[in-house]
Amino acid sequence: MHERIASPAFFIGKGDETLISFGSGQPDLPPPPAAYKVLEHFKSFKYGLVQGEESLRSAIAKEYPFAEPEDFVITNGASEAIDLAMRAIAQDAPGSKVLLPRPYYYSYPHNVSLAWMIPVYTDLENGKLSFERFVRDVEGCRAMLINSPSNPTGTVQDIEVLKKIESYCEERGIYIVSDEVYKDLIYVRENYLLHGKRVITINSFSKTYAMCGLRVGYLYTKDREVIERAVEMKSHTSMNTSLVGQAMALAAMGERDAYVASHAKIWRERRDLMYRGMLDLGLDLWEPEGAFYVLPKFKNPERSMHDLYYNYKIITYNGEWFGAPDRLRFSYALDTDKIHEGLRRVKEFLGKEYATY
Amino acid sequence: MHERIASPAFFIGKGDETLISFGSGQPDLPPPPAAYKVLEHFKSFKYGLVQGEESLRSAIAKEYPFAEPEDFVITNGASEAIDLAMRAIAQDAPGSKVLLPRPYYYSYPHNVSLAWMIPVYTDLENGKLSFERFVRDVEGCRAMLINSPSNPTGTVQDIEVLKKIESYCEERGIYIVSDEVYKDLIYVRENYLLHGKRVITINSFSKTYAMCGLRVGYLYTKDREVIERAVEMKSHTSMNTSLVGQAMALAAMGERDAYVASHAKIWRERRDLMYRGMLDLGLDLWEPEGAFYVLPKFKNPERSMHDLYYNYKIITYNGEWFGAPDRLRFSYALDTDKIHEGLRRVKEFLGKEYATY
Repeated sequence: MHERIASPAFFIGKGDETLISFGSGQPDLPPPPAAYKVLEHFKSFKYGLVQGEESLRSAIAKEYPFAEPEDFVITNGASEAIDLAMRAIAQDAPGSKVLLPRPYYYSYPHNVSLAWMIPVYTDLENGKLSFERFVRDVEGCRAMLINSPSNPTGTVQDIEVLKKIESYCEERGIYIVSDEVYKDLIYVRENYLLHGKRVITINSFSKTYAMCGLRVGYLYTKDREVIERAVEMKSHTSMNTSLVGQAMALAAMGERDAYVASHAKIWRERRDLMYRGMLDLGLDLWEPEGAFYVLPKFKNPERSMHDLYYNYKIITYNGEWFGAPDRLRFSYALDTDKIHEGLRRVKEFLGKEYATY
Repeated sequence: MHERIASPAFFIGKGDETLISFGSGQPDLPPPPAAYKVLEHFKSFKYGLVQGEESLRSAIAKEYPFAEPEDFVITNGASEAIDLAMRAIAQDAPGSKVLLPRPYYYSYPHNVSLAWMIPVYTDLENGKLSFERFVRDVEGCRAMLINSPSNPTGTVQDIEVLKKIESYCEERGIYIVSDEVYKDLIYVRENYLLHGKRVITINSFSKTYAMCGLRVGYLYTKDREVIERAVEMKSHTSMNTSLVGQAMALAAMGERDAYVASHAKIWRERRDLMYRGMLDLGLDLWEPEGAFYVLPKFKNPERSMHDLYYNYKIITYNGEWFGAPDRLRFSYALDTDKIHEGLRRVKEFLGKEYATY
């Protein structure tokens, strides 16, 4: 009898040579060399500004139109940025409802609950937000969380719909937390930056610069009250983000253009391989438009995940963890050889156990 | 008219050559050289274990009798460890009361409130916990937070009293969060490690290894439910603590004995100078037994703080921020020349403006 797989944490540390992991959502290629180079002369050790180093905030501000360094808080990855945003929103209104598009990134409902608010859902239609459905579901919500490009759907939301949601929320004072950590990984168009008085943009160095383990992210907002609350909270809950991480992040930004461009090619090749491969296997999935995930339908996804892992040495994530109980999530942050071999094994599985489900 | 000074944050970045800061509570001497040396070969970038690197947890476990690596969660400094501990305690009991000895470290009431619990207080008597008073004040509390050696009082609690509190809490299932970040800076005895089934020990690399800005701390507990809750929460609120910070922390530990011993002499010299200097000035204060703070009484401390800053270029912190409205906090994490000069200026102030209050 095999051990039951209850969450993504099950797979941590389960790495051997023959295993192919479509599990964890992190780039496999290293960060820009400058990120390591800066360590040679790194000598800081005293507390830094809780809001984040001025030099890093200034550099990031240049990437956003009309942004100022004061509009940013540097955080321990996007995760802390979301946590601070949620806690700032909940501060004078615990028990508020927060709308999450479903399927969602698996931490989101926890982020809402951990701030003592209540997650409610608006179901995507073919991976896309429907404005009509949104209007119905956002009723009574204090905030909404949007993640485009999306983990786990791999889809990108239509700009027209995003703009309508923006206006609707702006008029009613609903906060939009816009998690745009995959903004530099879009295959179908430029990123659309959501904006407005109560928009809180979340981003990080984890995906764009492959710095997941170094934990540098940020929140950006024109809402000064949110900035003040976030900085005040962070001064009690973690103080400044690691200065050595911030130094690496700033150095990485210096190589941004060449790095992002060279990686875009690699990601597109992987995406095409993965998407075509899955179509060839007869799987039903949305076309991946951004990030590095596909979310195909499976009969009995939990059993499929178990069989794929124990019998084919393939890691996939149960769609149920993301609010998609009829699907499996595959990350394609893998070199093409591994994707080929992974698809071959999935094909074998589909022809054997799966055919009997 | 001078700007009002509302919190410690006012002083951040206010550094010029002629200023003497008795404000910020951080070591001024650099970390062990090994902490920087390790950066030469640092190459990690992928997510690490949310609980913290196994190698670092194993090394820390050796410092605690009967401890195992599984008993630790590595965090973004002691601040995040306290935040996670409070949120873990509040998880199924929001609105619970948490007892804080007063004067307290200024973040503590916020740490409690941010976890949607309620801070209540037990007043120290001459800088010491009174067991009788504690028994009265802990009534109805779910947890207590102890900080010995204490910031801001500089006192160390009596071992007999700590043991009585330990037993009392153990019998009643009251959590003790024991913030021992100054455990390696005690002038009067060895540290007494509080222990018990529901004790959560907080520590960090900030004070012992002068790594404040690098943000590596941890919580240690034999309560597996607290560990599980903390790791689960952290997987949504910040993920692993920065891998580069953890690598520096592990390297620093290799030089622990020589580093701590050489610094003990320096701290003791500063303490003696500060304590005798303040007594010579006729100030009323508790003898500093640990950490690097004194908390002398002042008439009108807020006005004193303003006058000291604007007229004598001396930074001190208003005792009110720490629940001690009749005192000023002085940190003596400064070289002896500066302490001498600082005391000279305080003397001048006492003979002039202060004499007219």
